[in-house]
Amino acid sequence: MATRQPMQIGVVGLGRMGADIARRLMRDGHSCVVFDLDPDTVTALEKEGATAASSPADLVGKLAPPRAVWVMLPAGQITGTAIDELASHLAAQDTVIDGGNSSYRDDIRRAADLARRGIHLIDCGTSGGVWGLERGYSLMIGGDADAVEPLRPIFLSISPGIDTKPRTEGRTGQPDPAEHGFLHCGPSGAGHFVKMVHNGIEYGMMASLAEGLNILHHADAGKDNAEGDAETAPMEQPEFYRYELDIAAIAEVWRRGSVVESWLLDLTAAALLRSADLEEFTGRVSDSGEGRWTSIAAIDEGVPAPVLTTALYSRFASRGLDDFAGKALSAMRKGFGGHDEKRQ
Amino acid sequence: MATRQPMQIGVVGLGRMGADIARRLMRDGHSCVVFDLDPDTVTALEKEGATAASSPADLVGKLAPPRAVWVMLPAGQITGTAIDELASHLAAQDTVIDGGNSSYRDDIRRAADLARRGIHLIDCGTSGGVWGLERGYSLMIGGDADAVEPLRPIFLSISPGIDTKPRTEGRTGQPDPAEHGFLHCGPSGAGHFVKMVHNGIEYGMMASLAEGLNILHHADAGKDNAEGDAETAPMEQPEFYRYELDIAAIAEVWRRGSVVESWLLDLTAAALLRSADLEEFTGRVSDSGEGRWTSIAAIDEGVPAPVLTTALYSRFASRGLDDFAGKALSAMRKGFGGHDEKRQ
Amino acid sequence: MATRQPMQIGVVGLGRMGADIARRLMRDGHSCVVFDLDPDTVTALEKEGATAASSPADLVGKLAPPRAVWVMLPAGQITGTAIDELASHLAAQDTVIDGGNSSYRDDIRRAADLARRGIHLIDCGTSGGVWGLERGYSLMIGGDADAVEPLRPIFLSISPGIDTKPRTEGRTGQPDPAEHGFLHCGPSGAGHFVKMVHNGIEYGMMASLAEGLNILHHADAGKDNAEGDAETAPMEQPEFYRYELDIAAIAEVWRRGSVVESWLLDLTAAALLRSADLEEFTGRVSDSGEGRWTSIAAIDEGVPAPVLTTALYSRFASRGLDDFAGKALSAMRKGFGGHDEKRQ
Amino acid sequence: MATRQPMQIGVVGLGRMGADIARRLMRDGHSCVVFDLDPDTVTALEKEGATAASSPADLVGKLAPPRAVWVMLPAGQITGTAIDELASHLAAQDTVIDGGNSSYRDDIRRAADLARRGIHLIDCGTSGGVWGLERGYSLMIGGDADAVEPLRPIFLSISPGIDTKPRTEGRTGQPDPAEHGFLHCGPSGAGHFVKMVHNGIEYGMMASLAEGLNILHHADAGKDNAEGDAETAPMEQPEFYRYELDIAAIAEVWRRGSVVESWLLDLTAAALLRSADLEEFTGRVSDSGEGRWTSIAAIDEGVPAPVLTTALYSRFASRGLDDFAGKALSAMRKGFGGHDEKRQ
Repeated sequence: MATRQPMQIGVVGLGRMGADIARRLMRDGHSCVVFDLDPDTVTALEKEGATAASSPADLVGKLAPPRAVWVMLPAGQITGTAIDELASHLAAQDTVIDGGNSSYRDDIRRAADLARRGIHLIDCGTSGGVWGLERGYSLMIGGDADAVEPLRPIFLSISPGIDTKPRTEGRTGQPDPAEHGFLHCGPSGAGHFVKMVHNGIEYGMMASLAEGLNILHHADAGKDNAEGDAETAPMEQPEFYRYELDIAAIAEVWRRGSVVESWLLDLTAAALLRSADLEEFTGRVSDSGEGRWTSIAAIDEGVPAPVLTTALYSRFASRGLDDFAGKALSAMRKGFGGHDEKRQ
Repeated sequence: MATRQPMQIGVVGLGRMGADIARRLMRDGHSCVVFDLDPDTVTALEKEGATAASSPADLVGKLAPPRAVWVMLPAGQITGTAIDELASHLAAQDTVIDGGNSSYRDDIRRAADLARRGIHLIDCGTSGGVWGLERGYSLMIGGDADAVEPLRPIFLSISPGIDTKPRTEGRTGQPDPAEHGFLHCGPSGAGHFVKMVHNGIEYGMMASLAEGLNILHHADAGKDNAEGDAETAPMEQPEFYRYELDIAAIAEVWRRGSVVESWLLDLTAAALLRSADLEEFTGRVSDSGEGRWTSIAAIDEGVPAPVLTTALYSRFASRGLDDFAGKALSAMRKGFGGHDEKRQ
Repeated sequence: MATRQPMQIGVVGLGRMGADIARRLMRDGHSCVVFDLDPDTVTALEKEGATAASSPADLVGKLAPPRAVWVMLPAGQITGTAIDELASHLAAQDTVIDGGNSSYRDDIRRAADLARRGIHLIDCGTSGGVWGLERGYSLMIGGDADAVEPLRPIFLSISPGIDTKPRTEGRTGQPDPAEHGFLHCGPSGAGHFVKMVHNGIEYGMMASLAEGLNILHHADAGKDNAEGDAETAPMEQPEFYRYELDIAAIAEVWRRGSVVESWLLDLTAAALLRSADLEEFTGRVSDSGEGRWTSIAAIDEGVPAPVLTTALYSRFASRGLDDFAGKALSAMRKGFGGHDEKRQ
Repeated sequence: MATRQPMQIGVVGLGRMGADIARRLMRDGHSCVVFDLDPDTVTALEKEGATAASSPADLVGKLAPPRAVWVMLPAGQITGTAIDELASHLAAQDTVIDGGNSSYRDDIRRAADLARRGIHLIDCGTSGGVWGLERGYSLMIGGDADAVEPLRPIFLSISPGIDTKPRTEGRTGQPDPAEHGFLHCGPSGAGHFVKMVHNGIEYGMMASLAEGLNILHHADAGKDNAEGDAETAPMEQPEFYRYELDIAAIAEVWRRGSVVESWLLDLTAAALLRSADLEEFTGRVSDSGEGRWTSIAAIDEGVPAPVLTTALYSRFASRGLDDFAGKALSAMRKGFGGHDEKRQ
């Protein structure tokens, strides 16, 4: 594990994550041939030592076989198209690493396709976001061991490295790859499956923090408590809800010694320090595929994931996608109780 | 059970439900002495045969002891004040029936207070909303049997009666009170406890219908499916979401023979017939005390009620009370992924 | 709508629902040719007036073109196989009605296949369970109008009929089909899509009732309240949880006049009457496809369905499918707090 | 903040957390007078340099006024009794710090009581579990500033200290107390209110991890997929669920560079390393008061906390407290569909 012999690798897709991955590789002495549809990003990386390619074909031509190409594109459909194009120039024994957020089901299908031509497809769930250059990326890898094993020096350079965290109690001797921050999870799709569940957990942890902060935010609800009417019960014990809490300071104090210590908490503390009211945000929360797929996987497997799915649904609701349901509820209330909807 | 001997009863609070209860009583030959802070409602009932009272004291004076007074006021605080005022004029052996939506905990406390002076307090959860005159009211009664038993003719007249529904399979012989639509549930508070849980169930059933209708409402989501980006995965199989459904007709068809047959469905079908888009509503859904108390009871008892509590929380969220949580989520997403919030 | 002209129809699958559908049809004067792998069920129906068939081919041969065959089989895979077999004997202009619980996605694919040979496939969500002979079935129909329209006499006979329920307020004049209990919901798959959501709602309504009853069941939790320890807080106000409630009577009283009036409540009241402790059941709750598919549809559409999905997950959990999650929680608690798991 | 002048303090309750707090204090040069009902724990601390007390009165006598006494007892009731006993020996200007997991409502009441005699009560939410000696404790403090401020050297010694974590981006200059790991959150009760919400979040984060790990655990569900029947749909795409994942390694790989980095994950990785199947646990998960109180606070405030409450309910369900609900569901299924419960 200690040897990090230099390799040559192609990188397709030079957005924030793709470019930073190339930088981590070059920093460790690997040579990168890079391509992106935006020539400016290619030029920028070239100045940092990369070899520029003008097209997928050019990139393939500049790599010595057996080639390895890391594809780092944002969405599933674009990734699929790019891999198809790239693969048309590759040969048997070459390897494509899909580092994006593809569905693991697509990986399984695509790997089987490429395998017919002797080309390996590795799916590599890549976590780390915009901080990866500094922190390194957590890598969850799926595919044939024959293809994964030779790329170990690459994974070693991209992943954070064992020194970024104390060893887990009970681990001794030669570190496992997982302790460096990369893991060959299983056959094709396994990497993105694990990354998918990682993101599902992320949704739940984020929602846990967000709900808790919201309870703190409303800890003064007893101060301006309306007196209630037939529609709304008044707060029964307003004397227990008269706190005005400094939420930014609370997030900060939890960062050290508490049970909820986490990177998400660190980021939250930083955001609240910038603006305690988070004014730059509206509260309409996006979601991408992994959170959805995680819930679908739970349903398919028949295992309960109420926290993860509830976290997902809260995002849908934050974008107003339950409006019709709310209207139906108000209509029923009017139907049986004659209740008019209250305007705020 | 068959004999419905006429009784005299006071009714305090002549809103929709109070007035209709008086009407059902008079329809069965009972004599009502009625009072409300709004003299117009008193006059209206007087024209229908009630004896008007000009004050709680006047009402008490016009009733022969041992008296029974049904208090039907909207919110807990008003009810408490009214019962205190009323009780100051009552004597030992008199009975107050709290027919409103008081917290069962308040009933327990108040009944103990009144008991010191020999006055009975009966808590009577009363379901039926604005339809009670026609359908009758489901009555859930708590308090001492000594006080409850003599009022049976009253409960018989207010409740729907056994003929409004086929008998439950297996029930034979002399009908139980429950089959008429009233039940002495237990000691003080038991009536409102059962009514509270009834409303908790109501929240869950309403949310079940509302969520299902919303899924039908969005069954055309594949028609205008955006192509997705790094933030949002495109719909993977839009071909499965291209239905434009007639939701009013669907609610109607379910009314006969389906498993979801229910009064709430009947009301929903009527509302959708008036306006398939439910345009008169905004989707901001109110809640009153019972839904909240039901969830608190579940937590106190240590039993899971995820469906009922989720239904409650969806109402809170429909009123924007999770905005800060949404902002925190967007802030975290920006923190780790550089994602800007999408404006719709 | 009034004319119920006699038609001829084949019925394949004579389980409880299939046989009862044939009975409802024959009761209205239609003639049925019936087939089932179990010859006894065929013989039984023959005695009631049906024409027996010894094979799908025989059934097809005994029907005059253009033929209509109702396929009523339990699970999706069996239905697919049976329709394929049947279709191999059918001709253009014939119609197959899939009345089972197939996935609407399968219907879309299968209808497109059969359409190439001019055969119509109608998907007909059929609700009513074991009570359909008596109550009639709620029918949710998908497919081409050309195929659906001629079968109207069939649907009229199978559905409950308008007289089984008061008309929805606002409906006047000639009744719609939906008021009889059948609805052409849209193109292929629309019927089973609507039936799927119906079942999703059913899960939520069932869970609402079940959770509420469980809260009532534990209303005596304050009686034997343990004193608590570092692991468990003692009940803070045990005086509020000392009711011993007659749950069978409560279910009965809600049947008349309450907001939760529903067929599910009727069935619950009957079950509780037989055994207040429901001793014949273990509490391990099955689920079939529709509840799962409903949640997946919500996720695909991007709309929140927290109540419906939570209801689904509770069923999974009731079968022990969250055991590993529970172990992980106990392991974490031991990790940070040194807490040993409590044995019951 | 830099000066950590030595103080004298009493410590009542020498369980794991109380003893370790005394040790951290003595390590920083403070002098501790200690008492516990178990004399062995007192003797043990005496050997480490503490002054032993034989009773609360003795402890108070050995402290110079104005006194400060840290009470560190497991459950609320015991804490209340101990503080009452202790306070009977204290004088005006003395301060009691309640470091346990009391309800913040109890703190508010108790602080008002003690204030009548001039005694200060500080509520101090203390997070850190069995690791506090090493990691320090996160301290969330409520009470009068007059009482809190003089104890700053004590809080500095107990809390982790700023060096245990990189500073939050944007924080410069003289560190805030929150950066050391303690925070005066507000008036009486505020400390335990914040600690309560902290634990609520903890429940949600734990459940997020647990649910995700369970999905990974069942990623092989397609291998032994039953074929389904009328009760259970067969897995539709078993080919997507054939992974046998090394969950201990996955927890490890997420520890570096991923978005779910957290102390809870670290503990989980350690537990899975000891036993990948977590065999020593049954999956019956305890809960203590804070998780419940957090949900009740959300309900009282009227803000949604579906993830936190769902996490709580999952614990209840893990202990079989939804059995009656499950039986009711099975009874309904039998009622409408004739379905018998499946024995596993």
